[in-house]
Order: sequence, then C-alpha cells, then structure tokens
Amino acid sequence: MTERADWIAVDWGTTNLRAFAMQGATVLARAQSNAGMATLAPEGFEPALTALIGPWLGGGPLPVIACGMVGSRQGWREAPYRSVPCAPLGSRMTHLSTACGIDVHLVSGLAQASPPDVMRGEETQIAGFLSLNPSWDGVLCLPGTHTKWAHLSAGEVVSFQTFMTGELFDLLGTASVLRHALTGEGWEADAFEASVRETMARPERLAARLFALRAANLLEGTGPAATRASLSGLLIGAEIAAARPYWLGQNLAILGTGTQARAYRDALALQGVTAMLTDTERATLAGLTSAHRSLKARP
Amino acid sequence: MTERADWIAVDWGTTNLRAFAMQGATVLARAQSNAGMATLAPEGFEPALTALIGPWLGGGPLPVIACGMVGSRQGWREAPYRSVPCAPLGSRMTHLSTACGIDVHLVSGLAQASPPDVMRGEETQIAGFLSLNPSWDGVLCLPGTHTKWAHLSAGEVVSFQTFMTGELFDLLGTASVLRHALTGEGWEADAFEASVRETMARPERLAARLFALRAANLLEGTGPAATRASLSGLLIGAEIAAARPYWLGQNLAILGTGTQARAYRDALALQGVTAMLTDTERATLAGLTSAHRSLKARP
Repeated sequence: MTERADWIAVDWGTTNLRAFAMQGATVLARAQSNAGMATLAPEGFEPALTALIGPWLGGGPLPVIACGMVGSRQGWREAPYRSVPCAPLGSRMTHLSTACGIDVHLVSGLAQASPPDVMRGEETQIAGFLSLNPSWDGVLCLPGTHTKWAHLSAGEVVSFQTFMTGELFDLLGTASVLRHALTGEGWEADAFEASVRETMARPERLAARLFALRAANLLEGTGPAATRASLSGLLIGAEIAAARPYWLGQNLAILGTGTQARAYRDALALQGVTAMLTDTERATLAGLTSAHRSLKARP
Repeated sequence: MTERADWIAVDWGTTNLRAFAMQGATVLARAQSNAGMATLAPEGFEPALTALIGPWLGGGPLPVIACGMVGSRQGWREAPYRSVPCAPLGSRMTHLSTACGIDVHLVSGLAQASPPDVMRGEETQIAGFLSLNPSWDGVLCLPGTHTKWAHLSAGEVVSFQTFMTGELFDLLGTASVLRHALTGEGWEADAFEASVRETMARPERLAARLFALRAANLLEGTGPAATRASLSGLLIGAEIAAARPYWLGQNLAILGTGTQARAYRDALALQGVTAMLTDTERATLAGLTSAHRSLKARP
C-alpha cells in the first residue's frame, strides 16, 4: 500500500471476516480470514481483527467500521437493533476501543415487531445499494443462508421478511437422506425450471416433493445434477410463492451476482419478473462508506 | 426362556436392531441393540445379528424373518421392491444363510412409479395393521423420520406418499439457527395448535415462518417449549395440508402411540378428523408373523 488509508471497512459475518483498507470510498487493500463470529469467544475478536489489519496500521491506529454478526449477542459486543420503518443506517453506532487504541464502530441491525424478524449486515448492503441507486423505490432481494426481502421507500426500510431457504438447501443436501442422491457435481437448468414451476403452482406440496427426489434417484437413477437443481428449484419456488406480496408489481433488484442470485433471477423470470443484479461487495463497501461519512459528520 | 421358540422376528432399521424370540404369534423374549443399518458394513450384519439372538439358539438354528432397511441397497442384501398397487407382503422373500446355518428371510419394500416413492419396513407394519383389523379400508398414517400416508383398499396398498417432516424437524432443531432457540425442554400445546392452524391456512408461508421462530426468541424472549411446539406445528400443519387428498373423507388410522403420533392426531383433530392410534410394535410383530406363516405355507 503506497497510499495512506484513512479508515478500515470490515464485513464480519458468521463464518468469514473481511477487511478493506480505505481512503474515502476507494479500496487500497483487502484481506480476509475464516475468523467468523461463530468461531470466536468474546475475547477472540480483538486478536482476530488486529492479526488481519495490523499490516495496515504502520502509521498509527485507524477507525474501523464493522457490520454483520460481530454486533450480535454472540458477537464482540451487542449493537442494539433499530426498529423498522427506518433508514437502513442510524446516526449512532456502538463504539468500543481496543487495547492498542483502535476505535471500532459496530453498525446496528434492524428488527421488525410483527411479524417478528431481524437482520444484521444486510442493512449495510441496503444502505449501499441506495447510495449507488439514489431515490430507488421497490423491493430488494438479498439471497443468502437466510434470504431477506426488503421493501424500500423514500430511503427507508419499510418492512422485510427472512426465509431460511439457503440453510434448508445446505442441511438437506449435506445431512438428510437426500445427500445420497447428491454425490457428484453439476446443475440441470431444465430440472430447476420444472421444480420452480411445480412449487409455485402447489407450494404446499414441498415436503412431499423433497422425498420424491430420493425416490426418483433410487427408482429412475436420476443423477446429482438434476437432483441438485430440483432441490434448489423446489425451495426457491416455495420462497417466491410465499414472497409474492413483495415482488408482485414492484421494482425488483437482487443483491448478488453468483450462482444463488442467478437462480433467484431465473426463477423470477419464469413469473415474467425482470430483476436487476447488483454486486454484493460493492454494496457492502458503499454502505460502510456511508456509515464512515456519518461518523465524520458528527459534531 | 422356558418355552421353546420356533422362529425369530427382526425389525432392523437405520439406527436400531430389535429381535423377538417367537412361538407362533407369541413373544417369548426380546432384545435390542443400536447396530442399525447405517452403522454396519456389509460384513457386519451377520455378527450383529448372532450377537443379539445367540442366547436363543441353544436348541439349534431358527428361521429369521427381518424387515426394514436391512434389505436396502446399503443393507445386508438388497430385497427388490414390489410395485403398488399390491398386497403389503408378497409370496416370496429374499433368502440368505449364515455361516452357522441360520436361514434369514428379508421382507421386500414397496415402490411407486408415479409420483416416485419407496418404503421399507412400513409394508410389514401395514400388513400387521390389516391382520389386526381385517377388511379395514381407509388411509393409514405412519409417522416417523419419513412419515408415510398409505391408501389401503381390499387388502392392498393402492398408493402412498412420503413426507420428510420428521427429518426436517430434527435437522432444523439440532443443526439450523433455530437450535439457539431450543436450548431447554418442554412443549406448549397452544403454540402447537396455533402453528398448525397457521400453516394449514397458508402452507406456502412455511419457509418464512421458520425464521420468525428465531426472531421471536430474540425479540420477545419466546422460550424453548413454545418454539419446539411451534416448529412441530408448522411442519406437521404443512404436511397435513399437502396430504389432504389422503385424509379427506377417509377412514383414518395412525400407527404409533408416542409423542409424534399424538401430535399428528391432535393436528388432524383441529380439522375435525378423528384418527385411531395403533401400537407400532404390535403391528410390526403381526406383520412379521404373517410373513412367517406364508413361509411355512409355501410348498
């Protein structure tokens, strides 16, 4: 790093820790480790962070803005939830100082009272998405282990809804009887499309259709590529059926550009809905940059 | 055992091995171990069986009739599926002999071509149920890791449908983010009932309601007893919604008398459906006894 960083952006989730040496909104360097929240005891956060960002601190301590599960009850320190409807970022963050004088600011997650729901990390991506797309109104879908659908209007998160689709896909694929039908790689787009159409039409039959994947593997020799695409299609189809009030007749964008985000886009396209894809890291950094600016603006 | 056994009944599932020293239809002794199919390599089945039933063989080898996953592709030897519609038990079993001269007869499972489905073990319970309730027509629900609904008429299995509800409950409760909300015992009947009603009314919202259990735990302090009952209610409610063509306007019986069977009975009662509960072991033994009789009757 020949240029001088003036702050550090941190995206600290359940399984990963990612850090970015920043000069304003520009990334000068990046680093990451697998020291996610789930792997750390409370006293483990400070050494995990300093090990990763230490090389950038030759000129002295820099402020850190961090989002994600680092601010959860099981994290470094609990950053209280803010209640929707509200702007994705608040005017205050949760502050702590490390032994070597680094100021760490944790972004608050969002909570919804009814139906009960929470998010941590996605509020920063939403803020970033809005700063990249000013005055955008509509629904943002954020695929992940726990996929979120957020209704955004006039710069605020009006409401949101979480689906456990990603976690169900992982558990069913690795720990259930279906794992025997998934020993191999690949993806069959036709099987995905057929399964999406099936659960969109009859979402209540999901639990029955899951075991049929194993039976089709046993009786008809259906291979792992078709089984994997079908499992994904059944789960995403059921989610899109349940999320209909979110996407029907709305401006729609999807955060992400990888396999999972493209699967959501393809499933929505079967309903005649066109959704824009946005890069997740770009949104996260834009959101953390907004949080850093608000910190500097504070009296 | 003062009386003399003339055959041995074996119920050999994925996780357990249960054996019964039988004289006709009477149980003289019972034994069990955790040498389930999933724990054994192919060469491990014979020693696991002889270790368990050895004490009963003082008078010489006895024939063994075995049902369950022992006859699957990953079992001792594959007993080919029979196709529905058909009687639950066929006239032939898969035969093998052990080194010490024990004749083992494996009961075949049942397969359905469309929609693809399979069962192993439940066909024996169904045969036993029918021998205990001659000329019974209707639908039998067999709760378990993979719950089956079987339409029975004129002594045959006409069709059946498997739901992964039990496995989903276990995976979500022990391996998903919901496990954090389930650290403790208990059951709240009101929460079960409310959740059954909710997914019966809007089954497509299952994936969304699951995460809400965790959010309610975080935001409202909902305890493990209510969360556990709600999780069960959401999953069983979704299954009962999907299985409606099976139970609507039919004679209905449930195999089992434990917690899980009673949860299905209570959920069905909310729909105004009365289901008879039958003891599983009694049905299994009656089915294996029928299989043993057919063996003796063979020329």
